[in-house]
Parts: sequence; structure tokens; C-alpha cells
Amino acid sequence: MVVMDWDREQRTGVAEAVLAANKSPAQLETIVGAAIDKGRRLLLTRLDAEVFSALDVKTRAALDYDAISRTAFAGGIVPLKATGVGIVAAGTSDVAAALEASRTLAFAGHEAPVIADVGVAGLWRLIERRDELVRFRIVIAVAGMEGALFSVVAGLVPAPVIAVPTSVGYGVAEGGAAALHAALASCAPGVTVVNIDNGFGAATAALKMLRLA
Amino acid sequence: MVVMDWDREQRTGVAEAVLAANKSPAQLETIVGAAIDKGRRLLLTRLDAEVFSALDVKTRAALDYDAISRTAFAGGIVPLKATGVGIVAAGTSDVAAALEASRTLAFAGHEAPVIADVGVAGLWRLIERRDELVRFRIVIAVAGMEGALFSVVAGLVPAPVIAVPTSVGYGVAEGGAAALHAALASCAPGVTVVNIDNGFGAATAALKMLRLA
Amino acid sequence: MVVMDWDREQRTGVAEAVLAANKSPAQLETIVGAAIDKGRRLLLTRLDAEVFSALDVKTRAALDYDAISRTAFAGGIVPLKATGVGIVAAGTSDVAAALEASRTLAFAGHEAPVIADVGVAGLWRLIERRDELVRFRIVIAVAGMEGALFSVVAGLVPAPVIAVPTSVGYGVAEGGAAALHAALASCAPGVTVVNIDNGFGAATAALKMLRLA
Amino acid sequence: MVVMDWDREQRTGVAEAVLAANKSPAQLETIVGAAIDKGRRLLLTRLDAEVFSALDVKTRAALDYDAISRTAFAGGIVPLKATGVGIVAAGTSDVAAALEASRTLAFAGHEAPVIADVGVAGLWRLIERRDELVRFRIVIAVAGMEGALFSVVAGLVPAPVIAVPTSVGYGVAEGGAAALHAALASCAPGVTVVNIDNGFGAATAALKMLRLA
Amino acid sequence: MVVMDWDREQRTGVAEAVLAANKSPAQLETIVGAAIDKGRRLLLTRLDAEVFSALDVKTRAALDYDAISRTAFAGGIVPLKATGVGIVAAGTSDVAAALEASRTLAFAGHEAPVIADVGVAGLWRLIERRDELVRFRIVIAVAGMEGALFSVVAGLVPAPVIAVPTSVGYGVAEGGAAALHAALASCAPGVTVVNIDNGFGAATAALKMLRLA
Amino acid sequence: MVVMDWDREQRTGVAEAVLAANKSPAQLETIVGAAIDKGRRLLLTRLDAEVFSALDVKTRAALDYDAISRTAFAGGIVPLKATGVGIVAAGTSDVAAALEASRTLAFAGHEAPVIADVGVAGLWRLIERRDELVRFRIVIAVAGMEGALFSVVAGLVPAPVIAVPTSVGYGVAEGGAAALHAALASCAPGVTVVNIDNGFGAATAALKMLRLA
Amino acid sequence: MVVMDWDREQRTGVAEAVLAANKSPAQLETIVGAAIDKGRRLLLTRLDAEVFSALDVKTRAALDYDAISRTAFAGGIVPLKATGVGIVAAGTSDVAAALEASRTLAFAGHEAPVIADVGVAGLWRLIERRDELVRFRIVIAVAGMEGALFSVVAGLVPAPVIAVPTSVGYGVAEGGAAALHAALASCAPGVTVVNIDNGFGAATAALKMLRLA
Amino acid sequence: MVVMDWDREQRTGVAEAVLAANKSPAQLETIVGAAIDKGRRLLLTRLDAEVFSALDVKTRAALDYDAISRTAFAGGIVPLKATGVGIVAAGTSDVAAALEASRTLAFAGHEAPVIADVGVAGLWRLIERRDELVRFRIVIAVAGMEGALFSVVAGLVPAPVIAVPTSVGYGVAEGGAAALHAALASCAPGVTVVNIDNGFGAATAALKMLRLA
Repeated sequence: MVVMDWDREQRTGVAEAVLAANKSPAQLETIVGAAIDKGRRLLLTRLDAEVFSALDVKTRAALDYDAISRTAFAGGIVPLKATGVGIVAAGTSDVAAALEASRTLAFAGHEAPVIADVGVAGLWRLIERRDELVRFRIVIAVAGMEGALFSVVAGLVPAPVIAVPTSVGYGVAEGGAAALHAALASCAPGVTVVNIDNGFGAATAALKMLRLA
Repeated sequence: MVVMDWDREQRTGVAEAVLAANKSPAQLETIVGAAIDKGRRLLLTRLDAEVFSALDVKTRAALDYDAISRTAFAGGIVPLKATGVGIVAAGTSDVAAALEASRTLAFAGHEAPVIADVGVAGLWRLIERRDELVRFRIVIAVAGMEGALFSVVAGLVPAPVIAVPTSVGYGVAEGGAAALHAALASCAPGVTVVNIDNGFGAATAALKMLRLA
Repeated sequence: MVVMDWDREQRTGVAEAVLAANKSPAQLETIVGAAIDKGRRLLLTRLDAEVFSALDVKTRAALDYDAISRTAFAGGIVPLKATGVGIVAAGTSDVAAALEASRTLAFAGHEAPVIADVGVAGLWRLIERRDELVRFRIVIAVAGMEGALFSVVAGLVPAPVIAVPTSVGYGVAEGGAAALHAALASCAPGVTVVNIDNGFGAATAALKMLRLA
Repeated sequence: MVVMDWDREQRTGVAEAVLAANKSPAQLETIVGAAIDKGRRLLLTRLDAEVFSALDVKTRAALDYDAISRTAFAGGIVPLKATGVGIVAAGTSDVAAALEASRTLAFAGHEAPVIADVGVAGLWRLIERRDELVRFRIVIAVAGMEGALFSVVAGLVPAPVIAVPTSVGYGVAEGGAAALHAALASCAPGVTVVNIDNGFGAATAALKMLRLA
Repeated sequence: MVVMDWDREQRTGVAEAVLAANKSPAQLETIVGAAIDKGRRLLLTRLDAEVFSALDVKTRAALDYDAISRTAFAGGIVPLKATGVGIVAAGTSDVAAALEASRTLAFAGHEAPVIADVGVAGLWRLIERRDELVRFRIVIAVAGMEGALFSVVAGLVPAPVIAVPTSVGYGVAEGGAAALHAALASCAPGVTVVNIDNGFGAATAALKMLRLA
Repeated sequence: MVVMDWDREQRTGVAEAVLAANKSPAQLETIVGAAIDKGRRLLLTRLDAEVFSALDVKTRAALDYDAISRTAFAGGIVPLKATGVGIVAAGTSDVAAALEASRTLAFAGHEAPVIADVGVAGLWRLIERRDELVRFRIVIAVAGMEGALFSVVAGLVPAPVIAVPTSVGYGVAEGGAAALHAALASCAPGVTVVNIDNGFGAATAALKMLRLA
Repeated sequence: MVVMDWDREQRTGVAEAVLAANKSPAQLETIVGAAIDKGRRLLLTRLDAEVFSALDVKTRAALDYDAISRTAFAGGIVPLKATGVGIVAAGTSDVAAALEASRTLAFAGHEAPVIADVGVAGLWRLIERRDELVRFRIVIAVAGMEGALFSVVAGLVPAPVIAVPTSVGYGVAEGGAAALHAALASCAPGVTVVNIDNGFGAATAALKMLRLA
Repeated sequence: MVVMDWDREQRTGVAEAVLAANKSPAQLETIVGAAIDKGRRLLLTRLDAEVFSALDVKTRAALDYDAISRTAFAGGIVPLKATGVGIVAAGTSDVAAALEASRTLAFAGHEAPVIADVGVAGLWRLIERRDELVRFRIVIAVAGMEGALFSVVAGLVPAPVIAVPTSVGYGVAEGGAAALHAALASCAPGVTVVNIDNGFGAATAALKMLRLA
């Protein structure tokens, strides 16, 4: 049996989310059903399209599902407000993690645009958008491979930068450790880091920071 | 020759600091002298006591030096305000990194108390201080060994938690990788992480977050 | 040909168990048949559901199989006695390893309840059950991700704590090394550790400890 | 300031010990003085001979110090009883960790003999002492290099075996990871493991197990 | 095009063998056809059963194939002589690598018996066969998990011991690194080591040693 | 006895250099003496200042020594020509490796300026010098920490970029692996990489490339 | 949406290529269509045969596809000139990476022959072709396993050697790290290295070097 | 107390040797004294010059000490016979391990010449001595850095090749893992490997092989 922590939001400022990976369709149906019965909203992450398809009709109907970010909302959506969080993704392959962050913020009512394909090898594409970037109050930067984006962005903007290394890459970059270490070792101060591919974690950190405002 | 980035504060929100490790006394004397001549304040980190002792009299007199945190201020101190940053350190050996964070915040005018010896093995010591912890707007958590403190603190407080893993420990904990991985893999959402022993980085991230308020 | 060590129990206090992984259905049928012919009981571990399904009817009929823990008993079950072993699992995904431990103990006649979903991020769920936990004479703690549960439980209970790190997790936690290192580096003394996902090993260690009583 | 957890013994079954490594002589003098003032006994571990020599006369006089195990007792010794814990060390270089375990047990009143130089390369030396080994109720096995001792001992005795890998060795064995992995991967069930060089941890685990009797 | 080194045997004492892994059926058919045309014998290793099945009828008919060891002989077999090489395998799962060694030796005319299931956890099974073991002139020892077999065997027999670590195992033993490190760090002198799962390499080393006789 | 490969230059395009690390003063005196007797020029690398000081007077007089790059020339210097190699170093601590490259090029008659303190955190310092950078025909980029410089420079200039990761850094960057992986995983194509701290290797690669012109 | 960097060639000397891995057929069809509409040539790498087959007819017709190297050209081919780049591959399994390099060079109009099966174990095969090798102006060396080829080739030829380690191999060589480290640690100066399996990167580096001529 | 295994030679074919590292002068004096009293010869390895100097006069007089190989013989030397073992060392820094092997063989009466400075970067130096190399019955190859020597030598000679990787090197080669992996992954069959810097182990393996003759 899965025991939900329905009071987590009050205690820690972040509503409980359910990591769908490693859970069976039956377990997920129970969890979603309980949330709906209690009249609570719920965020599911790492919900693969095949698992979503395997859920019963009633559960699927109750979910707002997005396949690229592998996220689902139970209990409806809320209106979005632009509160200053921007998400920057180095390459096409980093978009999944970027959208996981964006959807997590959207679940909580925050609109966070994703600026993609601004990798460092095409530095001008990034610098051309500098005026846009400096207006963000919080920046989530998402990159795999060598992770140079983290240092470059943090050198350009005054906002806190939350780095999401991704597992995109091959050879020494396989699994994301190279990007993770680049984020942690960044010579640009003020960068903080979450686990590899953890767009959800970056978004919840951003939510906590927004409460400071 | 060392080229200073005197305008970094304006561009990125964080004044340039000088990593004193790997710099000779002569280089440090030049940098400090230049800061004073320009009427600028400067923070030095990782300034070992032996290197400080090797500086010339004039430079030493110009610095406010703290041996435990290995930090020095050039250009004088500023009055401190309590702005809601709290620092929690698991054990006695984690205090050096905690004080590096505290001094970096103090350099920028923020008073950040250090609560030490609240490791998880003595969980009650931590829980007893919960009322104090929940009042912080930002928490910097500092721990080596197995780094369980990060998850426990993030499960207790609503504030953003910045984790500083330390290199304290032996065997599998040597060098700090165990604590680093614990911080990144924390099951408590909203934790962000900086490099091992990087109290300075945690403080600069906190400074960027405080600008949100 | 597989050579069984039928006298191991007498010599080492633990009956031989068969690691079914990497063995063919034919090999397993032979081993189970031999045990039944000799009138001996036998525990099989890591017996995947597909392999169990591929066994011949006679062998399947001779086995008490549990799919989640991937364990099977040949030679019947024995009545269970509550002898004070408790199993604590951090999350839903840790239950498989927890049940491997529980079934191994049950094979030997010991009833060991599994308390699940008491991860550290919801610290109160764990603390609320403290009265229950302190009554156990031996605690097996099962956790993946950052493994903070090991230190927290060992800080709460006087019993020996046997830590089972699990391979649950992603990024730096993938494969279980982060949880393993957290267990080994625990600042709470008295924790001992077994290999990743080794619920069987934890249970056999508990069996040896119970002989001390 | 160091905050002691004087009530840990009552709560977890193990008295607080002080890891002297990374503490200054002044800090240690304060801690020892406080223990004596409160009339409490205290165990110090990892107290190097040079640091012991640097303590003031009063503190040194208050301590029962052993240089090989780097342990010290404050508050006097207690009479020893033979309660069935045996310690087996593979080579000469493993004796320091073995004695750390023995002294920790002695601090708590348990006599635990150390059987040294019974490495696996001279298997007969070990087998010749089998009658002695099988009489122990708990065995602490200490080995570096390839750590074959753990499996061999656990295959010989019915008692729980607590493995202490040591950092003795060079090349692939440097730092103790090879011995640690050998202990964790042991094909002999019932072995539990503590961190590299952690004789203290093995002894505290043994103390918790002895409470089962 | 694959360029064969038909003269390798004369130059280095070992006939060329073909690593079938990563080669297409068409490439293998060409290589085997060329060997037969030239009237040469050829050993193929790592030839999976599916790939063997995908070869054309003529090639399959020309090969003496063994599925467990994944080896095939082209050009016929030679009469076997007992020349004193023995192979010892710790567990059932190590038999594949042991048979790769045995078949490689058989290809060259040497009979090498495989003694299986003599792991260290059942030490007596190994010691009972000591008289048999000491008669071997060369011993190939095959083990995964913690690899304690290497040290134990080398402590029992006067012959050179060639260790083949295997990738059998899970957790810290996954992939074979734990067994490899145990072999290299063995405290029993005179052990030499080959790559993980490299039964072929161990056999070719034994062939070179036999030329010394 | 050290056997010199005096004909290497003719065969491979690069004169033999002597790695002074791990050689005794006596060995170095012999090597330098032999070079002078044969009328050959010789480059020594990794010659620490203490070892240089320990050489006899005659040898020291025969050497053109530079302490920061730890290089020495025997047999005199040659006039320098500007041939288009530029060296870019991220921080003050990277200058040693940068100068090892510059001196190696100078030994062969090429003038290679070092542009230092152009790290990515101060991106404008780097971009301001872009006109200077694009004129180089070959760029050697030297950086430790997170190594973002490699990708940024390779995104700015058309020349081949040879990356020299340095061991500067702490935590995850300690020893240089983070910078090495960043260089290898760079998303900017056309970057090639040498070993950590290997300024000499980068320079010899540049020399080989210059022969193409 | 994928943002192409159509001006990269002018700025950095290398035309943009598209890493097809992790991109959907629909994304690839859009990219190829845009290139054709703009009248631009485009190189696709890591385009698996299954993904190529899944493209629509029009896109497939527009591409010159090679399955072994997994590369495709859009916008037609250009006449090839022999400009002195040679590619040397140690074994059959290294040919895929070698052909990725060769095709990348062909896309840019350079003919680069691949010399395969010249591994070090058959040293004479390599030495016999020395006259051919020394005529190359740039050598790309491709090898997995232990990567001895890199040092041997660099000891034979005066040209710059670009090493491409491959992920071919098992045990300690799995994934290519052993070959990568051999390339970086090569005692033959003048070797530069690219990421594991990165034939494309080696070719683009060669293209940059050819501009020096 | 150190327990010697005086009968090891009879049982395993190799006399016991004493690893002097980590033993105190007093311990070594006792061991050497006991050997002399019993009229036995004894080999000491890893005996640093400073430790040798710290031994008492009587012990030093009883030892035949060699500082480069850090070995000492107690009980006199024996006449040497040339029995066909050759030792090949890649560079000057590999000579210490090569001499440890040579001295171990000399202790047992075998003369084993060391051929030094035949690294692969100067391939001709090695090939020029091929006639000499092919006459050896057993070859011990010693190399650090990238370890290409192992494959090259094994491709040239018909004898068994025992590889001794050394810890010589920096960057990715630091500590010897790159050379170790090169030895294990060698594409030249028949190479066996010992631990990093373990010249003693290679020699004892050679001694066991010589008994085959």
C-alpha cells in the first residue's frame, strides 16, 4: 500500500508529487483515485506513455497528460501567471527535462517559458537573447554533454541559476556525470544544482524561491 | 598578471571574490593593493593561515581575517542585518565550510547564524530546534559523511535548502562524494546543491535568492 | 551439474539457498527435485516470474512462490513466530527487497512485518511509528536514493540495524551506490550493511543474530 | 562549541564516542573536562599520538590511551568479562583496526581477543584455529587487500560475522575499496559490513547484538 | 574486409582465433570459408547461439559448436591429451567462462577438466578435492562475486594460478570489477589475472606456459 | 642507464624531450651532458625548482630554466617567429600549463602569446578579445574547474582548438577529470584534447599541425 | 522546434551537422526539408537504419545514406580530392567509427582511405604498411580495447595523429574508457584525442587542420 | 606478533616473503632475527631506504639490501643461473618495479636481465632487440602511462608475457589504472597481469612457471 503525505505542502511548501516510475498501473490508479476522492490535486512525474496507455479509462480521463515531459496532472489545471521563471535548454534532447520543470511550475500556477537550442557552440544564439534572459527572476538551465551552458548563463544574468544536468550524450558524457560535474564545478558563483534529469526538482526549488518574493 | 572583473557585481549580482588558494603572497598583495587603491571592497576565500602570515604588514593590516573560515575582507566591514538566512552544520568538522558561508554573507551585510552539531544521529537535537529552523527564509545545510542532514532538514522546513556537502569523512565518505550524492539524490524535493566544501558558492546563491525578496 | 551444500546449515547456521538468477529452468527443476527427494526444504531467491512460469508443472506445484519478492519455498512452509525482527522500507520501490528479507525470515519460521513508505522526506510518518520501532529486537532498514533512512532509524532505535541499500533511483543514485555509501558512512554507530538489493543477506544475518538470544 | 549527546546511550544502546580526528587539542580538552565534571565515561577514537602528546597534562593524566588503536578512555576502565566476541585480523597491518574494535568493546566491559596473521594465503593457520573460532558468539573479521578472509571465516563459523575492510594495500587495493567490495559481495550469507577501517563501528554493532542475548 | 593473421601461431605461439561478437553472419561465413579453403583450423569465440543459427547451412556443418562456451571449431577436432591443466569454477554461473577456457585448450589438443561449484562459502567442498588440485601443473580459477576462490586456491596448490574474474554478480559485484580487484590484490603470491570473462585468454596463457615444459 | 632516442625528430617530427619528474639529479646531469657533448639541443619538462637547484653548477649553467613552466632548454635558444599559435588560459592557476606549452613552442622557434584570465564567468573579457583570437591559426585552450572555456572558444574561432584540461580545482573538479570530460564532450566540433596538465603535449601537437602549413 | 546555426561554417570553419540520435523522424524530416528549401547541404550523423527507414519517402530520396557509418548527406555530394588524410582502424569492430570520420571528410570533399585490421597484436601488418602511412599529412587512428594502436602509429609517422577511442570491448574495456585513457596517456607526443566513438569530431578537427595548409 | 608461514614454500612453491611496508623497524628486526636463528633465508620487499637505515646494526649487517628495488635478502645469496626469464621496462621510471622482479628471481637463484627504455614511442629500439627478446622463455613486461608495451611485446614473442603495470604517470594515468586496464584489455592473447607495481608478484608467478620446465 502506498501511504501519501497529503500534508507535505503545508509543512515544506511543496505539494506531494508521485514518481510514477517503478509503480504499476494498478498502484497509480489507486493513488489517482484517492486524490480525486479527497478533492486534491496531484502531480505525477516520469509517467511513460506506455504506462499511461495501460491505465484504465477512468484514470486516463482524470489526467492532463503530456508525453514529452512524462507528467500528468490530476484534479485539473490552474490559471497561469508569469512570475519570472525562465527555462533555458542547450539542445533538442534537453527539452524533455526542461518541460518536466515547466509542467511542474504550471501545475503550481506559474508560467515558465522554455528557450531551447541555445547551446554554447552557437554562442551568438544565446547572447542575442541576453535581454530576454536578464529579465528572468529565476533561471533554470538544462544541458547535457559538457554542460558549458551553466557557466555561460550564470555569467550573463543576475538571477539565481538552477542547473539541471541531463543524461544526454555518449562516451565520457554518457549518463550525465560530465554535465553534473561541470555544473558543480562552475567558476560562475551562484549556481546551484539538482540531480541528473531532475527537472521536477529544479522546479520545486524555484517554487520555494518564489515564496521569498 | 591577474585581471580583475570589477564590474561583475553589476552584471551578475555577486561581487568578485578572489580564490586565494594557488596564488602567491605577491599576487595577493597586488590584488589587495589594487582593490584598496580603487576604493573597492574585496572578499578573499581559501586563504590559509600560513599564507596570510606570509603577506606583508601593510596587506595584513588591510584585511579582516578569519582563520577557521579562511576568509578575509579588504575594504572594511559593513553593518549586519538579519535577513533570514540560517546555516545548519551536522558536526564539528563541518563548521569551517559553514563559516565560509556565514562570512561571505556577512561581507555582503547579512547576518547568518550557524547552528552546529545537529547531526542526524542525534535527531532530537535537530527536532528540538525546529521552531527556530522554520523561521529561516533560506537554509544552508552543511554536512559530510553520509549527508542525511540534507533530507531531514528539507523535510522539516518550507524554505529553500542549499546543501553544502563537505569532504569530512573516511572510507567511502573520503573526499565528500558520498555526501554530495546524498544531497543530489535527496528524496526531499527543493534541495539544491553546490560543490563539495563550497560554502562560498552556497552563500552567493543565497545572496541571489535574497534579491528576489 | 550443481553440487548442493546440504550440510551448510549445521556448519554455518544458515540453510543453503539457491540463487535462481542465471540458472536454467532445467537446472532449477533438478535442484528442486533433489531437495524433495531428500526430504529437505529449500529457499530459492531471484526467481523471476517468467522463469517460474517456464518450470514444469510438477516443480511449480512443489513451490510456494511469491512474485514480488521473487522467492520460492520448496518442502512446505513452517508456522511463524514473532521473534522481534522488523523491516522498514523507505518507499514503494524498496518493497521488493524488503519482502525478500521477510520471506527469507518466514522460510525459517520468523514473522517479520514490513513497514513501508516511511521515507525521511516525510519524517513525521517515521517518528509517529517510533513506539512500534523501538520494540523490535532487530531492524532491517531498506532504502534507495540517498539512503537517509539508515541514519535516522539508527538514531531512533536501540536494536542492531541492518541496512539494505536498493538500486532504486536515477542519476547519481542509479544502481544503488549512493544509498550504499550513505549506509556505510552513517554517522549513527551500530549500522551494518549488506550488498545492494540483498534482502536475503540481511535476513540471514538477522537469523544468525537471533541465535544469540 | 561541541554539543555532546549525553543521552544517546539510553536511546540507542551505544554511549557517545568522540571522533578525535579533525578536532583541536583545545576542543578535546574541553570535551574531556566536561565528561569528567559530569562524572561520565567517554571513549575517544582516532586520537593520533601527536595530538595526544599535544594535550595538556591534566587531560593526558585523565585518559587511558592506546597508541596503536588510537583510542582513549576518560573516566576510568571497567572490569572485563568474556562475552563471546572474537576478532580475527588477516595481517599485521590490519591490527590497528582490530584493536580499535577490541578497545571499544573493552570500554564497555567486554573482553574480545584478537587473533592476528590468519590471512587466507596461509589457509592452514586459519583452519588450525577453527575450534577456537566456532566457539565465538560474534566474530569481527578485519582484512585489507582482497578481503578473502571474510568469506572464508563466514564459511567456517555459525556466528554472525561483521566485516571490517581496511585501507591496507596498494594498486587496486589502495584505500580499501577492493576489500570493501569483497565483503559486500561475499558468497557466504550472513556477513554484514561496516565502513573501511571502522573498527569502532563494528564493535558498536557487536554491542547492540550482545543485548539480544 | 577482415585480414587474418595466419602466421600468428608461428610468431607468438598461439593460433589466431576469431572473436565472433560484433561480426555479421556474412563476415563469419567468409572467414570460416577462407580457413577451410586454406586447410587451416580456426577457433571462434563469443559466438552466440542466435548468430550460429543465422549462419548458412554449409558453414554450420563445418563447425563444431558448443553453445554454453559460445565456441566453435572449424577444420575438425584433434585428439586430446591430459597435460595437467585443471579448471576450477566457483559457481554454476561461472561455468560458461570455464568452458570457454576448456574448449580453447581442447582446440589445441589439451584435455582440461572443469571442477565446478567449489566456492569458498562451502570451503570443505574445495578442501576435500585438494589432492586432485595439487596434481595439476597449471590451474585456471574462475570466479565472480567477491573472488575469494583465487586466494584460497593459490594458497593450496604449488602450480601457477591464472585467475578469470567473471561478470556474475549484482550490486558492487556487477560487471565483475569486485572479482577482478580481488584477483589482482590477492595476498597469495603467484596469481596472474586476465580480463573479466576472458576464459579464452586464460587458456592461451596456459598454452604458452605448457610450451615451457 | 637512460637510452635517448636522438633520431625521433626525423622520424616523428618532434624532437625528444625529457620528462624530468622521477629522474634523479645525477641522471639529469648525465642526460644534459650527453646532449651538449653531441651538440644537440634538448627540452626538459616537469623540472621542479628544487631539483633544478640540486643540479651541479655546470649543468645549471648549461640550462635556460623557467620555474613557473618547470621547463629548461639545453643547447641554447633559437630566434622566435610569430607563426600563429595562441594560448588562452581561463584562470591564474592555469598559467603553469599554458607556459609549459608556450615554452615548448619557443624551444622550437615559435612565439606563442598567452592570454590569461579569460574565464567564462567573465564572458565579456573573452568576447572583447575575439578579434585577437580569430587571427590565430591554432589555439591552445587551457582550463581547469568545469572547463567551459573549451566550448566557448571553439564556438568563436575557426582555428583548430587543442584543449589542455588542468588539475586546478576542488571537490568534483579535483585532479582535472571534470575539465577533461568537458573538453571531450564539448558540443563544439573540432576540439581535440590532451592529458590533464599536458601543456607539452598540446604544443607538440601544434608543432605537427604547423608542418601542414 | 530545432533552431539551426546556418552560419556556423563561416564563423568556426565547420558546417553544422545534425546529431540524429534522440531526434524523431518528424523532427529530422523538418530539418532536412528546411536545408533543401534553403539550398544548403547538411550532414546527419548517428542516423540508425531503423530511423532512416521510418523517414518519409521524400526525405529518404533526398538523402545519400550509409548504414555502417550511420551518416547521411542532404543536398548532394561533392567531388572528392585526395588531400592527405588517412584513417587507420585496429579491428573490424572499429570500422563504424572510422567510416563516420571518412564520410564526414567526404561530405566536405576530402577523400580519406580507411586502412583496417592493423591492430598491434599483428604488429607486422602495421609495419608493412609504414611507407603508406608516412605519406599521410594527417592520420586519424581508431581503436578500442587497450588502444595500443595510438602510441604505435604516433611513433611511426610524422603527421598529427587524432585518436578516436571506440567502445568496442568487454570487461575493463567496456564502454571505451580503457582505450580513451590509453590515447590520453600515450607516451608518443603529438597525439590529440576526441570523445569515444566520435569519428565525426576527429574529421572536423582534421578539416580545421587542413585549412592550415 | 607476526606469525610466519615457514612451510609455505613446500605447500605453494614460493617461499614466504615479508612486505616491509607498514611494519616498524622493531617488527622487522624480530622477523629477520627469527629467520637467521632458524637458518632460513628470507626476502623483504618494499623496504624503504629510511626504514632500512633505522634498523639496528646487526640486522642491517645481516641483509643484502638494494635501494632502488627496495628489497633485502636475509640468509645470504645463492649462485645465479640463466634460466630464460627476461624483464622489459618501458621507461626509466619503470625500473624500480622491474628490479623488484629481478631481485625476487635472483633471491631464488635465477638471473633475469632487465632491458630498459624500450617504450613504444621509440618502437625501433624495441624491434631492434627482437632477436634477444624471442629467446626468453618467460617475459615480464613493465610499463606505466598507456601500457602499450604489453601488447607490442606479446605480439613479438612466443613466451608467456606477465604484465606489471606501474603507477608512473599523471592525469588519467595517475596511480596506474590506465596501464592496468591496457594490460587486461590487450588484444594480444596470452598476456597475464599482476597488480600495479607488483614486480614481486610477477616474479613469483614466473618462478611457478619455471617449475613446469
